[in-house]
Amino acid sequence: MKHKFLGYQCSLCKAEYEADEIIYTCPNDGGNLDIVYDYSSLKQNVSADTIINSPEASLWRYLPLLPVNEVHGRETPLQAAGWTPNFSPPALREQLGLQSLWVKDESRNPTASFKDRASAVVVARAQEIGAEVVVTASTGNAGAALAGMAAAAGQKAVIFAPRTAPPAKIAQLLIYGADVLLVDGNYDQAFDLSILAANEFGWYCRNTGYNPFTLEGKKTAALEIWECLINRKLIDGPLAIFVSVGDGNIISSLHKGFKDLQALGWLDGMPRIFGVQAEGSAAIANAFSIGVEEITPVAADTLADSISVDLPRDGVRAVRAASQTGGAYLTVSDAEILVAIADLGQAGIFAEPAGAAAYAGLHKALKQAIIGSEDPVLVFNTGSGLKDVNAAMQSVAPAIIIEPTLRAVEQALDLAG
Amino acid sequence: MKHKFLGYQCSLCKAEYEADEIIYTCPNDGGNLDIVYDYSSLKQNVSADTIINSPEASLWRYLPLLPVNEVHGRETPLQAAGWTPNFSPPALREQLGLQSLWVKDESRNPTASFKDRASAVVVARAQEIGAEVVVTASTGNAGAALAGMAAAAGQKAVIFAPRTAPPAKIAQLLIYGADVLLVDGNYDQAFDLSILAANEFGWYCRNTGYNPFTLEGKKTAALEIWECLINRKLIDGPLAIFVSVGDGNIISSLHKGFKDLQALGWLDGMPRIFGVQAEGSAAIANAFSIGVEEITPVAADTLADSISVDLPRDGVRAVRAASQTGGAYLTVSDAEILVAIADLGQAGIFAEPAGAAAYAGLHKALKQAIIGSEDPVLVFNTGSGLKDVNAAMQSVAPAIIIEPTLRAVEQALDLAG
Repeated sequence: MKHKFLGYQCSLCKAEYEADEIIYTCPNDGGNLDIVYDYSSLKQNVSADTIINSPEASLWRYLPLLPVNEVHGRETPLQAAGWTPNFSPPALREQLGLQSLWVKDESRNPTASFKDRASAVVVARAQEIGAEVVVTASTGNAGAALAGMAAAAGQKAVIFAPRTAPPAKIAQLLIYGADVLLVDGNYDQAFDLSILAANEFGWYCRNTGYNPFTLEGKKTAALEIWECLINRKLIDGPLAIFVSVGDGNIISSLHKGFKDLQALGWLDGMPRIFGVQAEGSAAIANAFSIGVEEITPVAADTLADSISVDLPRDGVRAVRAASQTGGAYLTVSDAEILVAIADLGQAGIFAEPAGAAAYAGLHKALKQAIIGSEDPVLVFNTGSGLKDVNAAMQSVAPAIIIEPTLRAVEQALDLAG
Repeated sequence: MKHKFLGYQCSLCKAEYEADEIIYTCPNDGGNLDIVYDYSSLKQNVSADTIINSPEASLWRYLPLLPVNEVHGRETPLQAAGWTPNFSPPALREQLGLQSLWVKDESRNPTASFKDRASAVVVARAQEIGAEVVVTASTGNAGAALAGMAAAAGQKAVIFAPRTAPPAKIAQLLIYGADVLLVDGNYDQAFDLSILAANEFGWYCRNTGYNPFTLEGKKTAALEIWECLINRKLIDGPLAIFVSVGDGNIISSLHKGFKDLQALGWLDGMPRIFGVQAEGSAAIANAFSIGVEEITPVAADTLADSISVDLPRDGVRAVRAASQTGGAYLTVSDAEILVAIADLGQAGIFAEPAGAAAYAGLHKALKQAIIGSEDPVLVFNTGSGLKDVNAAMQSVAPAIIIEPTLRAVEQALDLAG
C-alpha cells in the first residue's frame, strides 16, 4: 500500500515507526504517536487554492492533508462530517463585551459532536487496512460518532461505554447498529477493557489518545478555522481559541492542525489555544498549572460527562497545545457550566455540558483579564445539548404548566392589565 | 413597505387580499392563504444561475423567491437553516431494491428538524412588520425551531406546547430562552389557545397551517431538491417524494415549491408527492382515500408525536399535493415506524418517529407496487432521533451490561472459541 505519510513519531521519546505498521502508542514509553508528513512534497503537490476551491462541504475537502485515501460511503452521513458553521452571535459578543467572537458549532456534525471528525478518518483507515471490526471505548460521543460513521460506511463496530452514559448517547449507539457493551465501571475501565479486547480479537481500535488517526481527523477543525476565518481575514489580530478538554485529544489536534499549516507556509502566526476543564476533572489543567507535562490521574466528578476522565490519554500533547502557543488552562465549576448552557441557548446554540464548558472558561478568562475585549476569540461548542437533556434542564427554570384558558396565560406571563 | 409578493389568495374560495395586510387564514371561509407572486417579473429579475451560484449554504440562497427581505442575525444559527444534505445510502438502496434512492436529512437543521425552514422565514417576516412577540403552538419541533431562530435573531418568542411533548423538545424551548407554556391538553387545544392569545395580546402568530409564511419557508426544501438533484441530473426519470404528514403544511409546501419552479420555467415535470400518515392520525389520508378534500377530525393516537394531530390545519392543500401530482397517501402503524427507525439508523441516519414514518411508507408503497424498483425516490427524514430517545429505544434491543472483564466480553458477543 502506498502511504500519504512518512510514518509515526513518539511525542515523548521521538522514536520513529514505519508507515506500514498498524501501531497505536509508542512501544517504548506509551507516548502518543504523531503522524509525520513530507511537507516539502506536500508543498509541491497541494496548493491552498486547491483546497479553498474544493466543492466538498465536509472535512473531506482536506483529504490531501489527511493520512488516508478515499473513503467508501461518500453519499452518506460520512459526506457531512466537519465543515461546521462559524457563528458570531451579537447577543454573546454583547454579553462578554468582545468585539470579535466566533462560536464554532460542532453540534452540527452528523452524530452531533466534534467526534465525527475523528471517526470519519478512522473508518477510512479501517477500510484501508481491511479491518473487519472497529472498536472504541467512549464516554458516549466518540462511540456514537464511530457507530454512526461505521454504519454510513457499512463497517462493523463494537462500542464500550460506561453504563452511566446519558441515555441519548446510548440510544445513538444502538440505533446505528453497533454492538454495544455497557461496562459496569467508569470510562477508564471501559478504555482498558476495549484495548484488551482489541488485542484478543484482532479488532482495529479507535480509542482516543491511543489511535494516532483520531488526532488527524480532528485537526480538520483547525484547518476550517484557518480557511473560513483567518485566511478570509474575518479576524483581525492573533486569535485566541477556547476548547473544552477531557482526554486532551481535541486540543492536541487543533495544535497539530495549525502546525501543519505553518509547515506548509500557509499560516503566519500561531493562534493561542486555551483549554478548559471541569474543576472535578482537571488532571491536565493541574499539570499545566505547576508547569509539568506529566499527568497525575484524578477521581473525576463532573456533570460534563464527555470530559469526565480520571486519566487523560493525550495529556502531554494537551499541555503543550497551551504552553507552546501562549495559551493556558482554566477550570470551571459545574454551576458555571450550567450558566454557560443557558447563555449559549439564548443565542440559539444548544450545547451539552462539555460543549458549554469552553464558553464558561472564556467568561472566566475575561474576568481574570487573560483575554481583553479587543482580542479576537473563537470558542468551540463540541456537542449538542440534545445529547444530555437532563443536564440542560438543570440550567433553566422549569416550564409553566397551564390550563387551556386565556386567563391562565395572563397569569403565567403576568400580562393582566 | 415595498413587498416582494402581490398578495394572498384563499386556497378555497380564491378571494384575494392585499400584501399590506397582516392576515392569516381567509376571513370568508377559514381557508389557507397562498402567497401570490408576479412570476413574469421574477422571471425577468431572477435567473436560475444566480441562485445556483449563490455562496449561501442555507435556505437564504432562495431569498429572491421568498416573500421577505433580509433577516437580522445572519452570523447566527439563522445562517444555517436549510441546505440539508441529500444522502444515497447503499444499505437502504439494497434493502429496498431501489436503483435510485435519496434521503433528505432535515435532522441536520440548527434545531434538528424541518421546522427551522418555516421559523427562519417567519422570524424575518416578524422583523419586517415590527412584531414585538412571535407566538406559536407546537407539538414540539415547530416551537423549538421558532425559539431557536428567534433567539438567533434577538426576537422575543412565546411557545404553547402540550405538556406531553417529549422532554428533549421541551428542553430546547427552555434553553433557547422562549416563554414556554405547557398546556394541560393536546396540540389542538394549544393551537386554539395560542390564536386566542395572539389576538388578545397583539402577538404575531407563527402557527402552522395558519400563518401563510410557514409554507413559503418550507418550500425551500423543494427548491433544494430541484437544485441539487433534478437540475444536476442526478435523477433519471420522474421523481417520487415521500414525506410524513401531520397538519399537512410540509407536503403542501413541497407542492408549492415545485409549482413556483414550474411557473418560472425552471422545472419541466412535476414530481409525484406521497404523504405518509400514522394509522392513528390519518385525517388527511382518510380524505384522500375517499376522494374528498374536506377533512374530518380524528382522535389522534400515535407515538410519532410530531404528526399526531386531531384536526390538520392545512388538510385541503395537503390532499391536493398528492392528488394533483399523481401521488397518493399511505398510512403506517407505530410498529412499522419503529422498524423504520432501526433501518435508517443502520445507514447512519437517526430519525425521530415522525421522521422515520416516511421511510416506512416507502417500504409499504414498494410492497404494494405503487413504486417500482426503477423509480427514482426521495424520502424525507424530518427530524432528529435525539428529540425522542424513549421512542428510539423501543426500536432496538437494549444494550448489554457487562463486568469489566474479557470473559464478559466473550460471553456477551458470543466470541468464545
